[in-house]
This record gives sequence, C-alpha cells and structure tokens, in this order.
Amino acid sequence: MNAKPLALHEDRLFPPDAPTRAIARRLYTQVAHLPIVSPHGHTDPAWFAGNEAFANATELLLVPDHYVFRMLYSQGVPLDAIGIPHADGSRAGVDPREAWRVFAQNFHLFRGTPSSMWLNHVFHDVFGLRVRLDAGTSDHYYDTITAALQTPDFRPRALFERFNIEVIATTESPLDPLQHHAAIRDSGWNGRVITAYRPDAVVDPEHEQFPGALEQFGEITGENVYTWDGYLRAHRQRREFFKSRGATSTDHGHPTSATADLSPTEASALFDRVVRGNVSPQDAELFRAQILTEMAAMSLDDGLVMQIHPGCFRNHNHGLFQRYGRDKGADIPLRTEYVHALKPLLDRFGNEPDFTLILFTLDESTYSRELAPLAGHYPSLFLGPAWWFHDAPEGMWRFREQTLASAGFYNTIGFNDDTRAFLSIPARHDVARRIDCAVLAKLVAEHRMDEDEAMEVATDLAYRLPKQAYRL
Amino acid sequence: MNAKPLALHEDRLFPPDAPTRAIARRLYTQVAHLPIVSPHGHTDPAWFAGNEAFANATELLLVPDHYVFRMLYSQGVPLDAIGIPHADGSRAGVDPREAWRVFAQNFHLFRGTPSSMWLNHVFHDVFGLRVRLDAGTSDHYYDTITAALQTPDFRPRALFERFNIEVIATTESPLDPLQHHAAIRDSGWNGRVITAYRPDAVVDPEHEQFPGALEQFGEITGENVYTWDGYLRAHRQRREFFKSRGATSTDHGHPTSATADLSPTEASALFDRVVRGNVSPQDAELFRAQILTEMAAMSLDDGLVMQIHPGCFRNHNHGLFQRYGRDKGADIPLRTEYVHALKPLLDRFGNEPDFTLILFTLDESTYSRELAPLAGHYPSLFLGPAWWFHDAPEGMWRFREQTLASAGFYNTIGFNDDTRAFLSIPARHDVARRIDCAVLAKLVAEHRMDEDEAMEVATDLAYRLPKQAYRL
Amino acid sequence: MNAKPLALHEDRLFPPDAPTRAIARRLYTQVAHLPIVSPHGHTDPAWFAGNEAFANATELLLVPDHYVFRMLYSQGVPLDAIGIPHADGSRAGVDPREAWRVFAQNFHLFRGTPSSMWLNHVFHDVFGLRVRLDAGTSDHYYDTITAALQTPDFRPRALFERFNIEVIATTESPLDPLQHHAAIRDSGWNGRVITAYRPDAVVDPEHEQFPGALEQFGEITGENVYTWDGYLRAHRQRREFFKSRGATSTDHGHPTSATADLSPTEASALFDRVVRGNVSPQDAELFRAQILTEMAAMSLDDGLVMQIHPGCFRNHNHGLFQRYGRDKGADIPLRTEYVHALKPLLDRFGNEPDFTLILFTLDESTYSRELAPLAGHYPSLFLGPAWWFHDAPEGMWRFREQTLASAGFYNTIGFNDDTRAFLSIPARHDVARRIDCAVLAKLVAEHRMDEDEAMEVATDLAYRLPKQAYRL
Repeated sequence: MNAKPLALHEDRLFPPDAPTRAIARRLYTQVAHLPIVSPHGHTDPAWFAGNEAFANATELLLVPDHYVFRMLYSQGVPLDAIGIPHADGSRAGVDPREAWRVFAQNFHLFRGTPSSMWLNHVFHDVFGLRVRLDAGTSDHYYDTITAALQTPDFRPRALFERFNIEVIATTESPLDPLQHHAAIRDSGWNGRVITAYRPDAVVDPEHEQFPGALEQFGEITGENVYTWDGYLRAHRQRREFFKSRGATSTDHGHPTSATADLSPTEASALFDRVVRGNVSPQDAELFRAQILTEMAAMSLDDGLVMQIHPGCFRNHNHGLFQRYGRDKGADIPLRTEYVHALKPLLDRFGNEPDFTLILFTLDESTYSRELAPLAGHYPSLFLGPAWWFHDAPEGMWRFREQTLASAGFYNTIGFNDDTRAFLSIPARHDVARRIDCAVLAKLVAEHRMDEDEAMEVATDLAYRLPKQAYRL
Repeated sequence: MNAKPLALHEDRLFPPDAPTRAIARRLYTQVAHLPIVSPHGHTDPAWFAGNEAFANATELLLVPDHYVFRMLYSQGVPLDAIGIPHADGSRAGVDPREAWRVFAQNFHLFRGTPSSMWLNHVFHDVFGLRVRLDAGTSDHYYDTITAALQTPDFRPRALFERFNIEVIATTESPLDPLQHHAAIRDSGWNGRVITAYRPDAVVDPEHEQFPGALEQFGEITGENVYTWDGYLRAHRQRREFFKSRGATSTDHGHPTSATADLSPTEASALFDRVVRGNVSPQDAELFRAQILTEMAAMSLDDGLVMQIHPGCFRNHNHGLFQRYGRDKGADIPLRTEYVHALKPLLDRFGNEPDFTLILFTLDESTYSRELAPLAGHYPSLFLGPAWWFHDAPEGMWRFREQTLASAGFYNTIGFNDDTRAFLSIPARHDVARRIDCAVLAKLVAEHRMDEDEAMEVATDLAYRLPKQAYRL
Repeated sequence: MNAKPLALHEDRLFPPDAPTRAIARRLYTQVAHLPIVSPHGHTDPAWFAGNEAFANATELLLVPDHYVFRMLYSQGVPLDAIGIPHADGSRAGVDPREAWRVFAQNFHLFRGTPSSMWLNHVFHDVFGLRVRLDAGTSDHYYDTITAALQTPDFRPRALFERFNIEVIATTESPLDPLQHHAAIRDSGWNGRVITAYRPDAVVDPEHEQFPGALEQFGEITGENVYTWDGYLRAHRQRREFFKSRGATSTDHGHPTSATADLSPTEASALFDRVVRGNVSPQDAELFRAQILTEMAAMSLDDGLVMQIHPGCFRNHNHGLFQRYGRDKGADIPLRTEYVHALKPLLDRFGNEPDFTLILFTLDESTYSRELAPLAGHYPSLFLGPAWWFHDAPEGMWRFREQTLASAGFYNTIGFNDDTRAFLSIPARHDVARRIDCAVLAKLVAEHRMDEDEAMEVATDLAYRLPKQAYRL
C-alpha cells in the first residue's frame, strides 16, 4: 500500500503570513478546548437514548451525509451505488464495503471543500487514521472504522463525552412524542440533549404531509385544530411540552422570510381557507407569514428563542425526489428578501427586549445589505452563523467581513453546527473557532483591535454568546 | 484606574505581510498630509458661522451619531438612556455624564467596527487621550473632552483649520435660506464651506413634508409652483442661488434609482396628479424618476454635478419613528437595480461630456454587475465611494476589488466622508487613504502595477479626483 | 525619450506573503508550459484560413478590443478619435498612428485592470517591448508592432504555433457556410481550429436579424423552417454540419436563463405565433426558453456540449448603438436567476449522464447561492469560468472562493478565454493559470490540501478538465 500520510496541521486555516498566524495561534489556544455548545442541529436523539453501536463506516459517514453524496452524484455516481435509501424504504443491494470504495475512489472530488476538512478531522482524530483516503486505502479505512464502532468507546454517549459537548439540541416536529428525550433524562446519564420546536409540517399548507399532520396535531393535543383558536392553543400546548423536554428554541424553515400581521378576523378567515384544502400559493405564503408572527407572540410569552431558516427551494430535482424522497442533496438556495418581509413582525415585536429572533440566510448578498443593518438596529434581532452552503472557511470569512461593520460581533451568536453528522461536530466547531480566531488575528495584525480584546471576543464567540442567545 | 493604553499604530489598516506593508507605508507617506477635500457631507454650517463651543462629550460625539446609538440600541440600551431627542423635541432628563457612562460600558460592542476606529482616532489625536475607553475611564474621558471643548482650540473654525480642510460641502434643502453660508462668507474667515442642493422634500410626493414644502417653495421663489413650468423654474432659480453660495453639486436620496423621460405633456399631467394630493405609489415613483431626468437637464445648463444616493428604506422601525422621528439608525438598505432604471436618463444625457452623474449604492451586489460596467462605459457616469453601511475597511476593499476590473480607478471619484460627525472627518479620510494605499500596495506587490504608478493613483484618489469630479 | 522600463515579473499575481508565494511558484512551474486549450472564443477563422498579415498596431490591438475602447470612451475619448467603424460601415478618417497616440496618452486609465495586464504581456512577450507605453513611447510602440506584423513570424498561423495552442474553437451562426474551417482543413496546416454552434439570430425572435435569418435558415437547409418540425430538423441538420467542421459544442447568449418544457402542441402553437411576427415579449422569452430545452434534447442525441451565457443587456447605449451598431462596449450585466429558470430543462435532462450543460454568469451573487449548489448536485451541470466583466484576477478569486464549497474544483471546467483579441490568448491563459495556482497555494499554505493534490488539481484545471468537459 503506497499510501500518502494524513496529518492535521496545528496551524490549519490560519492566515499564512507569519505575524497574523502567530496571533491566531495564541487566540486559538484559549478557545480550542472550551466545551461544545451546539444549540441547533439534527442529530438523532435515539442514538443517545439507546446508545447502540453504529453499524459500519458507510452507514455512519456516507449514507446520512448529503454534503457527501450530492458531490458524488454530481459527478455521475448513482445514488444506488452507495446504497442511499429510496422513498419507499427499499434500498439497492449494495455491499457497504463496495459503497465505501466508490467513495474512496472519488475522494479527490472533495479537495478544498469543507467536507474534506471535516472528514479528515474525523478520520484522524476520532479513528486515529494516519494515511489519506483513496482507492488504495479504502478497505483499510472501512475495516478500521467499522471495527472501532463495535467498541464501547465509540458508542454515542461515549463519543458525546469525548467530544466535550456541554449541550446539544436536536430538532423535532410538534407531532414527535419526544420519547427519546424522556428516555435520556430518565436514564441517569448526564449528557444534556434537548429538543427544539420545528413545526413546518403543521404550519406549511404546501407541505405534502400537512393534512395528515394537522389531524395528528389535533389528536395529540386534544384541541380542535380546525379552528384558528384551537390551532393556536395546540401550538402553545406543544411548545410547553417541548420546553419540558429542554427546548429553549423554535425553528422555522420557510421558503421566504415573509411575515404578516393580520387582524384576528383576517387570520381566522385565512385559516379557514387553508384547512379547507386546495390552498392557493398566495394563501399558503400568507399563512406561513402570519404563523411566524404568531410564533413570535408565543415566544414573548414562553421565552422560546425563535429561529428562521428561510430561502431554500427544497427537492429541486423532480426525478430524484420521486425516487429517493426528501433531503437528497437537491435543495437549492434562493434569492431572499428580508427588509420588507420582516417588517410586519418587527413592527410588533422588534423592539421587545425579551424577544430573541435569530436570522439565517442562504443568500449572502443580504449580509451587508439587509441582515447586518437590521441586526445592528433591532434589539430583538441576532444573526445566526454562515449556514449550510456557506459554512466553509471562505463562507465564514465572508459572513464576518460582511456583517462586522453594521452588526459588530455582538449581534451574532457564535456557531451552529446544524448537522446530522454526529462525528463531525468537533471538526465543525474547530473550523469555526479557527476561522473566528483568524478573523480576529487579522484585525489585531492590522491594529484595529488589541489582542486582549480579541481574546475576549474569541471566547465570547466560541462559548458565551451561543449560551446566552439560546438561553442555555 | 487600571486602564489599558490607547495607541494608534502607524501601520494600522495596512496588510500584515511585510513586503506589502512596506509598499503601503511608502504610498501612504505621500498622501497622509494632503489637504482634506470633503465634497459631500452633513456638517452643520451654523457651527462654522457661529463658531460657538460644542457643549460636552455626549452632545458632540454620542447624540448626533446614529452609527453609535443604533449599535447601543441593538443591544438593548434605550435611546432615552443616552438622551436622544424625541420627535416632539422633548428629551428624557439624562445627565450627559451618565449617558457617556452607558456608552463607555458598552464600548466593546464596537470592536472591529468603523465606529471604534473613528472614535479612537478622535480620542487619541483630537483630544490626546492615551487610555482606552471603558467603564473605568468613562469619567476621565468625559471630563477631558468636555474641558477641551471649552477652549478656543476646539471651536469649529479652529478644528476646521487644524484638520487641514481645503473645502467642505454641507447639504441643504431648497427651502433653506443659506444664511449660515452667507455669514461665513461675510465673516472674513477663509474656511471654504459650500452648500449642495438636496431637494428631496420638494420632489418626493411621499415625503411627509411635501405639501408644506411645496407651498414654501412657491413663497421663497415667487413662482407658481403648482404648474409644471413654474415648478421647474423654481428649481432653476434655487439652484442658481445655491451656486451663489458655493454649491457645485446636487444630491438626490431616492428609494430607487428609477429615472423617466416623459414628454412635456405627460410630465405636466403627472405633476397635476401629484400636486392634487393622494398620489398613488406608482405616480410618486414616476414623478421622482422624471425629476431625476429634469435635474440632469438642469445640470447640463448650470454645471452642477449630480449625485444619486438610492436604495434605502427610511425609518423602518415604525414605533421608533413615531416616538423619535427620522434618522434614528433605523434606515435599512434595499436591493437596488440600475441597468433598466437609469436607461431613460442615460439615453438622453449619458453621452454628454459636460454632464457628471455620480452614483452611489447600498447594494454591493451591483458593484461588479451593474455599476462598474456602466461607469466603465458612459462618459458622464462616475462611481461614488463605498457608502454608509459600507464605508468600513472591508467595505472599501470590496468596492475597489469589485469595481476595478470594469471601471478602473479613474471612473471613481475618491472619498466622501458623508458625515455629520465633524470631529471624525480626519479619521474617516485617513481610513480611506490607508485602504486605497493598501489596495494599491497589493497590486504593486503582485506586480500588476509599478510603484510610481501606484503613487500617482494614490494622490489622485486622495486629492485630485474629488476636486475634479466635483468641479472644486 | 525618458521611458519607464516594462517588465513581467515572474511572480506576478502570486500572493505576496513568502510561504504562499513559494508554493504558488512551484505549482505554476508545472502548468506554465502546458498547451493552450481554448474551447470557447471569438477569433476569426479567416485569419487562420488566409494567414494574411495583420495591418498595424491600431487595427490589431485597439479597434477590435471593446474592453479597451469602452474604457477610453468612458473618459471622454470619442470613438471616432480611434477609428471605430460606424454601423453603416463608414469610418472617421483617422491616421492609425494618431489613434494609437490617443490610446498611449490614456494608458494610465487601465491601471489595475485586466486589460493592462493582457496588453503589457502582449507588448513584452509577443513584441519584445521593454519600455512602458505612454505618450512618449507611443510612436516607438506603433512602429515596432506594425513592423513586426509584416514579418512571417507574426502571421496568424505562426502565432498560433508559437502560442502552443492545441485547439481553438471559434463561434459561428447556423447560417455560416464555415468555408474558412473547410479551407483550414484542406490547407494541410495542422492547427486545430474548430467551430461552435451559436444560433442566437435564428432562435431569438427579438433579434433584429431574426426574420431574414429564418428565411436564410430555410434556404441553407432546404427545410420548411416555418413549421415547428421543419425548424427543428433544420437545427439538427446544421448541428451535424457544424460537427463535421469540428464543433463539439453549442452556445446560447440569452437575456435570461429561462427554460421551458412545453408539449409539442404548445410549442408548435408558440412557434406559429413567433414566425407570424410582432411577437410579444412574453412569447419571445418563452420561445427562447423552449429552444434551450430543445437544444438540450438535440445535445443528448448528437453529443454537442451545451453552453448558456445569459444575463446581458445588449446595446444599452441607444445613441451609440444607432451610430456604431452592436458590440461597442455598451453591454451591461443584469441580475440573473437560475433556480426556477433552469428547472424545466433540468427536470427533463438534468440527471442524464451523457448530457453536459456548462453555465456562465455575469451575476456573481449567484456563484455561492445558485450555481455552485446546482452544479454540486446535477450530474449534467458544470460551471464555466469567471466570465467577461469578471475575468480579472479579483473576479477569478471570487469565482473560486464562492464556488469551491458546494461545487469543488471538479464541477468546474477550467478556463475559457472567450476573446476575439487573438494576441492576448497566451496572456489570458497565463493569468488564469497563475490565479488557480495562487488559490491552490493558499489552500496548501492553510493546510487544507497537500501540495501533491494541489499539483494534480492545477494540471486538471489548466489542461485536462477543459478537454474533458468539451469532449476535445
């Protein structure tokens, strides 16, 4: 095996010029080992409740990671070749070792991407691998990882502890009984795994599960959710239940950031049209818009921090969606407008000191134009970090460089890993900390900030601000 | 007092790598002490006419600076806590020393922002402070600044001379009698303080002061401003009057950059609908659009340089606007289109060698896509510098890096401070000169330009181009 | 003659910090001398067929280069002063030596622009000039260049060979008889000059030549192009003919990237409305949209790679267009949408492994938001390089930094020079190779990629990927 060495350089992601790099290194030293606060993500609470071993390298690292398989697919690798499940639950009969080989042969496609950084970090630090992944080392990788996963040190709870996670939030539908969170709490294990309230399926009339979800929403709450008042009461009830399972936040994944502030009569009439079915696109949009304002009103009462993740065209690839279903790497960002869209909600709640609304975007052109000016004015607004397609080093740099002038550091909230790839969580937080230290080092090297100030900001971004913003 | 030292490093804002920094330093040495040309801004001519002492640190540096108090407000500081006046002219009874303490305690919020750079420059260079502003040094700051302001050296004219300002333009409404400019001229003082013609209140039918402003426009000019011809004559008359008070430019702050080229009959009919009241949004937009083309026509006759500052949603925060009025840090940029919007005006005047139109934007996505290609073609078009939310070091870099390819340096016009924060003017010009030298140093270090050429460009940007573009 | 020296530094365009520069230099050494693959451009095949001498410096370097004369025009130089032909074929009587002097006197306008880099490269490497171009050296330049052009070494074929061009594609209308390509083939000369199918004039009902072009399209193909089926057959026939002259690609320059997927009945009815004349803007847009999908269908059959170059407002300057006609530096980019626009085409052909669609943009805000996510998912989609207003070093950096995370390097296709400025082709490819090496060097210096991987990527981008993407 003529393998290339795999190393993680201690100065990775720091600017190459010597004076800036030295500052970055000093700043990073102070934040490298702070506990991980993960206030928004998509890990499966069942992992921590059941604490079962992960199956093998392919099932753990390849099949669930749409960053990875979308890149393979873009270069002609059929999803069946790596065993991605179909929409009907069936799967092509693929040997996971063979699937891993397809991945290994194509690992050069990831050069320069965040996936390669995260994966190499996992390979090196979690599994102790010291050669690069390629066709020649594929089986060595598969065997090493799969063997490790069978040992106690690689069970979910052991990894959680090894990763020094202080708290992690998962994301659930209002219809979820949250039994895994209850099981974790009842198990006596000390890991803090909390939920977050993500009501998309019961608030988006265009969601394919909406009618069934609404019915179930009524059953689970005992409310008549076909009346506007009952529907709102059902939300309040479930939000309380989610709080009892640790939730400190809600999350809303809408196609736009539209908000509305209808009178109760108008809202009720709109709701009647929505539940009747065959909703028009205009009514669907208006309903989602009104719901955001209703959710803000509830947040003011129950203290849940509100998050909006707007601006994605979900399931853009029609053929792929029909065969493989949702979340198959075919979600594409859209141009997103915030200034007009958020005004109805902000006119009602933007000046409330006890309300926190965290905004995200997939449209970077809004960083300096809309989001930073908004967050640099409204007391209730904060900016979530560079998100999804933008959580690469370059995207994080752009986020800071385009929001700093108007929002400063303190209207941002530190890092979200926002991932279902559990093993990559330390890698992702490490990248974010390194980039924030690099950004700060540049400011210090350009004599725009003293190093003691940068040190404080670095710590705030890595640890204090996410805890504060999410009320953890 | 355990205070941290405050210093302004001589290499601040220069790239940290040694070869580029050395070039930047050499370039900067040639432009650092050139006189300040400030062709667009919002200082109060009454300061220079009356030459009264400024009251205290809070009234001078905090209350008028919406960059500063919007950031404090965004982090929960009530505007009343720092004594921001209400719309009705009343003010919360706040001790200015206490207000300053609120500011000092929160000064960390500005880390990395342009405000911190500008303020530290003022503290250090204008007031000789040598410790950092924080809770512990708040009173020291307040006392030092307030005491200095009572001395002759800190009167407006003394500062004007100390700042080496060759010329400064203020901005007035057509209704302004310009008595302060007359008083300055008649006083025998040599400082050159000129006005600029900003007719927003009499050209925007949606401006809340429009009806009254129009009436006053008629009284002040003796024209029947309720006829289209009389209205245009009134503009021509006031523009002449402004020229007699030194004006070399007009300025237009519209929500969009729309222009129109209606026939006289259409324009006259539109004007009739506009003055009748209850104007439709479409007519209001069309009227503003037509006015820009009329202003261009007048510029061709009277030689006033035309500026358009489009794309801001003014007074976005409804509650704050009702209580505190305009200009309270709640203006938010909007996506702005130029290519279709400017065509009617450009089709008439874009090829006129004697017409100068300077374009600004709050939408950076237009730099490389629309503005630089337009300015790199039309003889009459020039690009104003990075504006408002974008006049930070990062924003200035983006402006240069995104306009250079298509517009070069010579279709831009050097720096505008665009500020009402008089004391920050040297700081702002210094930042702009440093960034331009840094940009040029990078080009030299990458062997894309020789250093003697960069030296010439640096001088042009700092001094020659603004004088030439604004006909000063 | 007090001339300044002209040199091309061996490290130009590499990052100035020493460690990164050293890596960039090593990478560049491996790709500097690879053959030029030019899969998309606008050189004139008649040059290579006839192999006549170019006339003089002005006719070769100034008159055909709209990058150059648009900048001169933007600063008040009349197009007649440099002898740009009028729309009616006439030209102002300008001595080419005088025109060159106007250019020389204004050469400082190009400081920092890509034109100055390309031109200096041509002056230095092609013509051996060692002093900078300015008013004092103008005649020296004119004489040196013009004299050289009369020698055999500066005939088109000799330059082609000296430039180490492996293959170059020109771009022709379906109406072109391609006689120059035939002549090249029949001449026994070994230079590979191929065509590309650019049907704008026969697919855009708003093109001023559309009616006549359609008629000619019928004559040349013998099809009844006034029926939808005959029209499509005519395209298929001409595409085959273009293939026989070496074409491996088609190219489509539309105002937007809209695609449509009408039923044959709908498409046929639309076509009937289009050929009837007086087409509505909506029908024109829909027709262009439908044609893109038809072209994709044909590509699947005949294997021609498809390119879309959307988003330009052609001939924005009305007065200039009337006097001088098309392509006079007055084309301005437009905001461009891809996610909704491409869906009809992608729903049909996006998952086809044998179909290649290369997307370009003039709207950089789509790099990270739309284009990279699309190319990082669909197997048939690839991203063309930074185009036209964006092919400067800064634009190339932005392209890489904003597409890398989601598309990686391997969903891009290397460089296109896209130029009619034949002599600048080596300069343009050299810039692209240097920037790609600089980007890769930064990744290596930041320890995100090993140097052996960067070496492979550099070679892929410079040589392998363009050949593969364009099936050369």
